[in-house]
Amino acid sequence: MRTRAAVALEAGKPLEVMEVNLEGPKAGEVMIEIKATGICHTDEFTLSGADPEGIFPSILGHEGAGVVVEVGPGVTSVKPGDHVIPLYTPECRQCPSCLSRKTNLCTAIRATQGQGLMPDGTSRFSMLDGTPIYHYMGCSTFSNYTVLPEIAVAKVREDAPFDKICYIGCGVTTGIGAVINTAKVEIGAKAVVFGLGGIGLNVIQGLRLAGADMIIGVDLNDDKKPMAERFGMTHFINPKNCENVVQEIVNVTKTPFDQIGGADYSFDCTGNVKVMRDALECTHRGWGVSVVIGVAPAGAEISTRPFQLVTGRVWKGTAFGGARGRTDVPQIVDWYMEGKIEIDPMITHTLTLDEINKGFDLMHRGESIRSVVLY
Amino acid sequence: MRTRAAVALEAGKPLEVMEVNLEGPKAGEVMIEIKATGICHTDEFTLSGADPEGIFPSILGHEGAGVVVEVGPGVTSVKPGDHVIPLYTPECRQCPSCLSRKTNLCTAIRATQGQGLMPDGTSRFSMLDGTPIYHYMGCSTFSNYTVLPEIAVAKVREDAPFDKICYIGCGVTTGIGAVINTAKVEIGAKAVVFGLGGIGLNVIQGLRLAGADMIIGVDLNDDKKPMAERFGMTHFINPKNCENVVQEIVNVTKTPFDQIGGADYSFDCTGNVKVMRDALECTHRGWGVSVVIGVAPAGAEISTRPFQLVTGRVWKGTAFGGARGRTDVPQIVDWYMEGKIEIDPMITHTLTLDEINKGFDLMHRGESIRSVVLY
Repeated sequence: MRTRAAVALEAGKPLEVMEVNLEGPKAGEVMIEIKATGICHTDEFTLSGADPEGIFPSILGHEGAGVVVEVGPGVTSVKPGDHVIPLYTPECRQCPSCLSRKTNLCTAIRATQGQGLMPDGTSRFSMLDGTPIYHYMGCSTFSNYTVLPEIAVAKVREDAPFDKICYIGCGVTTGIGAVINTAKVEIGAKAVVFGLGGIGLNVIQGLRLAGADMIIGVDLNDDKKPMAERFGMTHFINPKNCENVVQEIVNVTKTPFDQIGGADYSFDCTGNVKVMRDALECTHRGWGVSVVIGVAPAGAEISTRPFQLVTGRVWKGTAFGGARGRTDVPQIVDWYMEGKIEIDPMITHTLTLDEINKGFDLMHRGESIRSVVLY
Repeated sequence: MRTRAAVALEAGKPLEVMEVNLEGPKAGEVMIEIKATGICHTDEFTLSGADPEGIFPSILGHEGAGVVVEVGPGVTSVKPGDHVIPLYTPECRQCPSCLSRKTNLCTAIRATQGQGLMPDGTSRFSMLDGTPIYHYMGCSTFSNYTVLPEIAVAKVREDAPFDKICYIGCGVTTGIGAVINTAKVEIGAKAVVFGLGGIGLNVIQGLRLAGADMIIGVDLNDDKKPMAERFGMTHFINPKNCENVVQEIVNVTKTPFDQIGGADYSFDCTGNVKVMRDALECTHRGWGVSVVIGVAPAGAEISTRPFQLVTGRVWKGTAFGGARGRTDVPQIVDWYMEGKIEIDPMITHTLTLDEINKGFDLMHRGESIRSVVLY
């Protein structure tokens, strides 16, 4: 069949909206009509050419929601008509990672997904002249119709609006999951969030959900403050207005009883390796946990004195918020529908597929939290 | 009173055994007759001058065992005649750290201890001419008699031999505690230990105690192999004999089911920041935990790509094995007496106080695992 898609023909160029060929689902695969997709910094990272693993031509997009329209042989967990969210981190429930009970990083289809291919080593997309087009993060939600492995779709309730829950396919789950699954923040904790973009806001609402007492936001842009407060931020620090942001956080977190100070948890949502160091070092001696969420430029390295670790700080990271997609994503959709978390204020722009490059422009100019393409 | 002690008069010089003055215990303090003390690399680190916080003249030594001979006003938890192990990490059970339930790094007397003083800001030791001599790590076990705060002594059973359990005051607890308290290694785990000195051997026996399936030792010296095997090492890797030690560990830990490979846990017992990086990167994608135990040279930094953390590895550290001294040290003494752990083969040399500099020579030449001074 044919479908409309925004194709990344080469690095550094705008996407081109065109008709492409899409083969039907093979064994274990499903075809999905994408109803809405977010535009994420990771799409931008790959499109810019900065991603050393970027492959072209490809169909980007990994933050979608839609409806199953066809299933291949052997598919049992979803059927046509089911509402689903595509998962760039699949959940096969059979590989060593899924069975470890310690990680969400399913490895069942990692090798082919990294090569822009379906698990059988081929692509379902091609140009009208037959040139293959690569899949992206196993999702390719910038196409109106796409094909995914069954293990990479989360079935969700049918009353949830596609143009909001698509954001759960990446940003919402990453931010909230980092708090709940990776850091396991407890009630009463003091936490710091570096970077108040879309991920940072979701970390903040994850902290509110977890019952944190103090939620400190750090950003170079004062304009980020009102929205972050809306999601639960209790204190704001602009590093431009203090000599040393680490010391400032230590001071803010001191109490009459605890004169050592430091955050119980910190989250880097910037991708800047210097900020990652600050995020570790501002945590509390003895038990501070710092979680890296942001994606750093290729080759960049984090560093610190080992003394920071020996005195009890823990440095960890998270991918897709430590969430097992098929198990946890439907629950986050429920939380949204029940009002436990908010998404609507973060969807600042809604676009048509033809306007998709405008979404990247808005991101570049820092004017959007999240732009969503509605098919 | 007067006591015999080995005094560190200045950095880089041998210790000098001499008579010194010792004041009796003040309120909340106890005087201990040290019966035996180990000589640890940390004493050597300070004596060499490499420790930026080293203060002279001082009485080093922090790995002792002895008997309480006198208690100051208000002391209730020990009495004269009690057998005790001095604690360089105290346990006051009242400070924010002790009450956090998250760390062993009691901060009750941290400031004065770091300055070589008792909690009231003065020293109990002085030269016969009246010049003050500083305490070291709050212990100063290279003196036949010493004074410590009550919160810095662990009361232990009286049938345990001083010349063995003194090692529990640092090395044994650090190694075993890193496994049990910090990494929380579970039965069936695969672990790697970098550096097969005294700490490494104790990590190995901690792993055996925890029920690890695979205990890989890494050392540049093949001669370390037999002793490490005696304590439970199941595999040995000499980095000189393989191209890439990280890849070698990944290969060794692969199974027919798990073709990703990597250690569940790793421990750096070298203090070398490059080794610390290898120790992190050889752990398993998704859940590997690497624990820094070794003390790095002043100013040295660890580094890695944040991708290592984002894909699920955790970097942490340990001090005194995460053990709460007064609570956990008596239990480790019990384990020794019950035969659950071994110490005797690691005490390779027993010396008199007059021979103490020989102990440092043995350490420099790599001929000892642990030298113990018997008073």
